[in-house]
Amino acid sequence: MPDSPEKIYQQLCDHVRQTAMILSIQHVLAWDERTTMPPAAGQYRAEQITYLAGIVHERQTDPRVGEWLDALADSPLATDPHSDTGATIRTLRRRYDRKVKLPQTLVEELTRTAVLGQQVWATARKNNDFAALCPLLEKTFELKRQEAEAVGYDEHPYDALLDDYEPAETTANVARLLASLRHRLVPLVEAVAQSRRRPPVDVLHRHYPIASQEAFVNKIAERIGFDFQSGRLAVSQHPFCMRMGPSDTRMTTRYDEKHFNSAFFGTLHEAGHAIYDQGRRADQFGLPPGEYISLGIHESQSRMWENLVGRSLAFWEGIFPEAQEAFPEALGDVAVDDFYFAVNDVRPSLIRVEADEATYNLHILVRFELEQALIDGELAVNDLPVAWNDKYEAYLGIRPDDDTHGVLQDIHWSAGLVGYFPTYTLGNMYASQFYAAARDELGDLAPAFRSGKFAPLRAWLREKIHVRGKTFTAAELVRDVTGRDLSEEALMHHLHDKLAPLYGLE
Amino acid sequence: MPDSPEKIYQQLCDHVRQTAMILSIQHVLAWDERTTMPPAAGQYRAEQITYLAGIVHERQTDPRVGEWLDALADSPLATDPHSDTGATIRTLRRRYDRKVKLPQTLVEELTRTAVLGQQVWATARKNNDFAALCPLLEKTFELKRQEAEAVGYDEHPYDALLDDYEPAETTANVARLLASLRHRLVPLVEAVAQSRRRPPVDVLHRHYPIASQEAFVNKIAERIGFDFQSGRLAVSQHPFCMRMGPSDTRMTTRYDEKHFNSAFFGTLHEAGHAIYDQGRRADQFGLPPGEYISLGIHESQSRMWENLVGRSLAFWEGIFPEAQEAFPEALGDVAVDDFYFAVNDVRPSLIRVEADEATYNLHILVRFELEQALIDGELAVNDLPVAWNDKYEAYLGIRPDDDTHGVLQDIHWSAGLVGYFPTYTLGNMYASQFYAAARDELGDLAPAFRSGKFAPLRAWLREKIHVRGKTFTAAELVRDVTGRDLSEEALMHHLHDKLAPLYGLE
Repeated sequence: MPDSPEKIYQQLCDHVRQTAMILSIQHVLAWDERTTMPPAAGQYRAEQITYLAGIVHERQTDPRVGEWLDALADSPLATDPHSDTGATIRTLRRRYDRKVKLPQTLVEELTRTAVLGQQVWATARKNNDFAALCPLLEKTFELKRQEAEAVGYDEHPYDALLDDYEPAETTANVARLLASLRHRLVPLVEAVAQSRRRPPVDVLHRHYPIASQEAFVNKIAERIGFDFQSGRLAVSQHPFCMRMGPSDTRMTTRYDEKHFNSAFFGTLHEAGHAIYDQGRRADQFGLPPGEYISLGIHESQSRMWENLVGRSLAFWEGIFPEAQEAFPEALGDVAVDDFYFAVNDVRPSLIRVEADEATYNLHILVRFELEQALIDGELAVNDLPVAWNDKYEAYLGIRPDDDTHGVLQDIHWSAGLVGYFPTYTLGNMYASQFYAAARDELGDLAPAFRSGKFAPLRAWLREKIHVRGKTFTAAELVRDVTGRDLSEEALMHHLHDKLAPLYGLE
Repeated sequence: MPDSPEKIYQQLCDHVRQTAMILSIQHVLAWDERTTMPPAAGQYRAEQITYLAGIVHERQTDPRVGEWLDALADSPLATDPHSDTGATIRTLRRRYDRKVKLPQTLVEELTRTAVLGQQVWATARKNNDFAALCPLLEKTFELKRQEAEAVGYDEHPYDALLDDYEPAETTANVARLLASLRHRLVPLVEAVAQSRRRPPVDVLHRHYPIASQEAFVNKIAERIGFDFQSGRLAVSQHPFCMRMGPSDTRMTTRYDEKHFNSAFFGTLHEAGHAIYDQGRRADQFGLPPGEYISLGIHESQSRMWENLVGRSLAFWEGIFPEAQEAFPEALGDVAVDDFYFAVNDVRPSLIRVEADEATYNLHILVRFELEQALIDGELAVNDLPVAWNDKYEAYLGIRPDDDTHGVLQDIHWSAGLVGYFPTYTLGNMYASQFYAAARDELGDLAPAFRSGKFAPLRAWLREKIHVRGKTFTAAELVRDVTGRDLSEEALMHHLHDKLAPLYGLE
């Protein structure tokens, strides 16, 4: 008598949970590498990570997984795609099919190159030395092309890479969404540029002692809902958030004594990711019902707290007295309205992670187009710095003086993350569309924000998005929560509603 | 044709190196747990560590290791016990024979209990709640008894546990050494107690801002030779040092705003361990020629820098102006001679890690006797707090007010480290005997210390001890380096030479 579907399902889940546990060890190594590890230890760390990645890949491509999934394909457990069991079977099937197409040697080389790439990148960025990174980046794009060919794709090799971060999304659809957005965004950014009103951004560049910043961002992260019992905030060169256990979510920020935004909005952003991570089901850690849907959905949560909440007038009306107390020298003589205008300064800039809500998406456009060209072979890595600078000049009207403020600013490509960038702008669109739905259901959130209460919004996000894990695809979720397909509509609405009064637009 | 000894040796070494690499991942997890991990993540961390410990144990007991060692036993590679190959074969033989006697289930339970034990200990210590720790400690001692029975022993089950930390050492010999030491130490401590001279210890309890302490201890750790390119200094509740890769040695300290000694001498101590770790051969990482000899020898290196160097007059004559600059409020009005006397205050105290050089060894005696009684079953864990307090009263003349300052102060037993404590006093003896030999060969070290130069002593230690790894046993090394067997002689000489002038003893 063959095993029952329930028994097979249990075997499958035990196997997948164990794999997730090994992967979580790899995450601890990565966290340590980026926050603590001494420089000379890099080579050995790459060996350690490669070893674990090998075990993980072996387990993910274990033929038994394919057999279990085959046996479950027509079982009642697979019927409802939004049930825990249905979503698990659907997701693991997709993942298994992708993984078995990738040769073990390619996976190991991708991992090794990514680990070394991140180390070389950190030095290259510091020394403004693109040439030092170039060979590793060439190897990375060559390996990513091999990955796309191995995985297969319908229209464009880039589809195969994008799918890893934004499952079921296509290059064509993203290109269409970004084009629609650009079509409406460029006139808005131009109108802002022509306005004679300018925010007093100098207040953001006063002296903000780092110890005070640390205390302040820790307090605010806790206020909006980051749980320090199951999380940590540390420092790294490039901020990130990482869930490395059912009750272990880590995030980082970086401090700039002469810039308020860097640590503050960086922390709100990562805390948004972290609240999503902490809001998912701990009992389903390592299984699809406990996983995030896609990077775009993940990013929607970080943007929600960074921009929709953290750059709203009500938020600052609530928090500003505390900010003045934390930074009396910098903010003692500043009015809240001026500060609110300053943190909503819209103007073209060089650094993506410090860009404003509006122009940010043009930074993404640059990267989206360049990485497609690199994968197609239309652009050589060697020519990347010039191509980068040209596109910044074309889309944002400014040109980087050096590569540290240009092509070397992001870790992504050095870490093997190609096809990742567009998910940031998808996230911005999702965030606005979700936020509009939240306000439709909960009413005006401003009074709660003014009194420092973020639980109603957080509870809504948790119920509608977080606890659902991967039982919905991104497209299904956005239709279920907002009643519509994803579009640029809500984001443009939000930007216009905010920027028109600030800049006196019609 | 059978494989050549060289080929078999290579297979053995590849296997052992890979095992060491997996063990090093476990060390990263342990480091993170003790320095960074959020509280709620403890349960899952125990699972991660147990998983890796299982793989390590499986590899260490792989029958092929036994076969390789059998095949190499009579080969020319095994002839010279001080050669890399001879020492490797000798050491791995000992280790393999010990490991195969331990059932996998016992190893896993020891690991799991130790991980949980450390977490429970941290809370119990904070809350002065021995009862909360008691069941775990009972389980630990029961498991350690099982370990001793499984490993086997000649005279005393404690022999089997001691051997894990101080290979080839015996309970009887340690008891004899400690008795000889006590015989001479107690009169010296009594003479000090009867002296009317008292150091101005209040200067050590002035206000030492933590940020200044941090900067100062980092500077001094670097000065004596800790390499920050391949090392880190962080904060943890109980200071420790850990080598987790060929070029990755981490240490921790703890800061007390109202006590200079805690972070400063704690850091010197851990830096001594770390300099030993950094001084061994990176190319032999994971193999006996790259390993430390024993905990006693390891401790001799930490005590060397903490006490022989760090509590010497010449050291303070060199460093004191910088200390005054770092802590102008606390030290501006203090004379170097007074400060030197203060850091050499000898008096009975409750906390081992803050004890002076002389009485420290009485703290060890308490633990050595108690853990023997616990293993023998002569003492129940439940009765441990009272037994602890009674012994402190008997040997040191003081009684703890609570368990936080008594039996809960050390992590060792909670972490499954039984048989470990006596290695501290062995370390004190080794340190003094090595230091006397260094002075015989290098001449007076005081002038170098006065001008902040520590390279001559460090180079001597590196050549005589560090680079030799495990190619000598502790007993062989001390005879080779000092020409004598280990005894209490040099330690007593050192203490008498220092304390007699300070306290006006005859």
